[in-house]
Amino acid sequence: MINQLTANIRKTGAPIVAGLDPMLGYVPEHIQKKAYAEFGETLEGAAEAVWQFNKEIVDHIWDLIPAVKPQIAMYEQFGIPGLEAFKKTVDYCKQKGLVVIGDVKRGDIGSTSAAYAVSHLGRVQVGSKTYAPFDEDFATVNPYLGSDGIDPFLKVCKEEKKGIFILVKTSNPSSGEFQDRLVDGRPLYELVGEKVAAWGEELMGEEYSYVGAVVGATYPEMGRILRKIMPKAYILVPGYGAQGGQGKDLLPFFNEDGMGAIVNSSRGIIAAYKQEKYAKYGGEAFAEASRAAVEDMKADISGALENIR
Amino acid sequence: MINQLTANIRKTGAPIVAGLDPMLGYVPEHIQKKAYAEFGETLEGAAEAVWQFNKEIVDHIWDLIPAVKPQIAMYEQFGIPGLEAFKKTVDYCKQKGLVVIGDVKRGDIGSTSAAYAVSHLGRVQVGSKTYAPFDEDFATVNPYLGSDGIDPFLKVCKEEKKGIFILVKTSNPSSGEFQDRLVDGRPLYELVGEKVAAWGEELMGEEYSYVGAVVGATYPEMGRILRKIMPKAYILVPGYGAQGGQGKDLLPFFNEDGMGAIVNSSRGIIAAYKQEKYAKYGGEAFAEASRAAVEDMKADISGALENIR
Repeated sequence: MINQLTANIRKTGAPIVAGLDPMLGYVPEHIQKKAYAEFGETLEGAAEAVWQFNKEIVDHIWDLIPAVKPQIAMYEQFGIPGLEAFKKTVDYCKQKGLVVIGDVKRGDIGSTSAAYAVSHLGRVQVGSKTYAPFDEDFATVNPYLGSDGIDPFLKVCKEEKKGIFILVKTSNPSSGEFQDRLVDGRPLYELVGEKVAAWGEELMGEEYSYVGAVVGATYPEMGRILRKIMPKAYILVPGYGAQGGQGKDLLPFFNEDGMGAIVNSSRGIIAAYKQEKYAKYGGEAFAEASRAAVEDMKADISGALENIR
Repeated sequence: MINQLTANIRKTGAPIVAGLDPMLGYVPEHIQKKAYAEFGETLEGAAEAVWQFNKEIVDHIWDLIPAVKPQIAMYEQFGIPGLEAFKKTVDYCKQKGLVVIGDVKRGDIGSTSAAYAVSHLGRVQVGSKTYAPFDEDFATVNPYLGSDGIDPFLKVCKEEKKGIFILVKTSNPSSGEFQDRLVDGRPLYELVGEKVAAWGEELMGEEYSYVGAVVGATYPEMGRILRKIMPKAYILVPGYGAQGGQGKDLLPFFNEDGMGAIVNSSRGIIAAYKQEKYAKYGGEAFAEASRAAVEDMKADISGALENIR
């Protein structure tokens, strides 16, 4: 699947992933109204609104981008109906040829970690049958529990040719509370990065490993070091746009050929119509605003990448 | 809810939480067969088997214990039907007066962390209505992302009078890879423990904080230190039984009055009938084997606690 991801990135020329993190406040009123008319102001109604919102955005941007990253929390908050909308979104995006990164940040140990791996990337056995419950292409994983939490994901990735992105240095202001603490004079995130490189060695695709890393756009200097520590890990870079990162901050995450990183934008794409810059589209044409935002983001990143070629 | 938990512990005299982590391999054949006859060898069939298994165990042990801890991964692996079984289990246990600790180990930042908090402990707004999607009493939370990941949970805990258990030192063999690394001469888990104590200060119940900690039974010496670092944090102790911990190892986690810790056993209770010791019950009477295992565990821990009184 890492090969599919790099192929999609080359085809679109856009190292961009659209974060499908639909807070209800982002969903235009006309979509909410229609969903509530059909299902009431219920969890089912909210889930329907979210799904229709996603679908229209995906229909407008799928040809421009290689991948999407639905954030499962935004669906889980609407309970079972919300998770049904998550699954519908995953399936729909895959039909469109998009690589789907499930931003699930799961992390546990042993058989529990195996259950999460099976749930999101693998197949579960029921009697004589097997099923792929959520069936994303990649999942994000939390490393705090060490190898016992990662190994079951590696096993499933190997079997299914899928991948994971492990949290190394997250984009948020407080990420340093634990991640930056010095261990033998070096920050913890560097040690996690070294483990990511080691875990990924056995799971190589054509150029990059099935095992990638999450490093926030908000920390470009750390990105530069981590890029070297994990040469074969694709870096998923959140924090562009709304969280403060810009195109020029992204260079350290990329290799010299412009590959090696994929940049996420969520709000900046899916709620573009709420920004002054795209306000002319209005709520009715929200998905066209999303398309314009993707095009602008692509130009911003391409422009910045010119400087490393 | 921490007051409810301590009240339940005093009432039952058993600082025990039953881990409802139903791998299909634990579910006796007669239950699986019946579920597959009704729903086929499908995710729905697996979920029905898991639910019937849980229900029969809960019916046999609810009066002996203060709390249960369903591990959501074991349900998530059966997709949407699995998560419906999780929700049914949560609701049923609450009806029985049990405190429900959702072992979800979620961890993210900002609005995403808020969405997880709402999903598991709070209420989500849909138009003019609010809903409590999964509605556990406590949730387990991963601290790797720092305060940005914890604060939204604290906010919901305060509003709903619910609680969290933050991963500090996990029970697995590789937990030391990152958690034990020395920062200024002290292991990382101690720094996390200090933060747990600080986060919990503002959210005090009668005796203990709404903010607890997870510390593995497999590391009693670390438990002793963490007990002192986090005097007001209830400690959720996994790793008893199958993972190697025994009653005598548990003393460091408790305070002198025998409170302050609650010990989890999953396999040891729910799959007791598979142990030689309880084999006489057989698959048909699996839930009676679970009851016997709870009684034995209670005696083991009570015996050990005699030594600190």
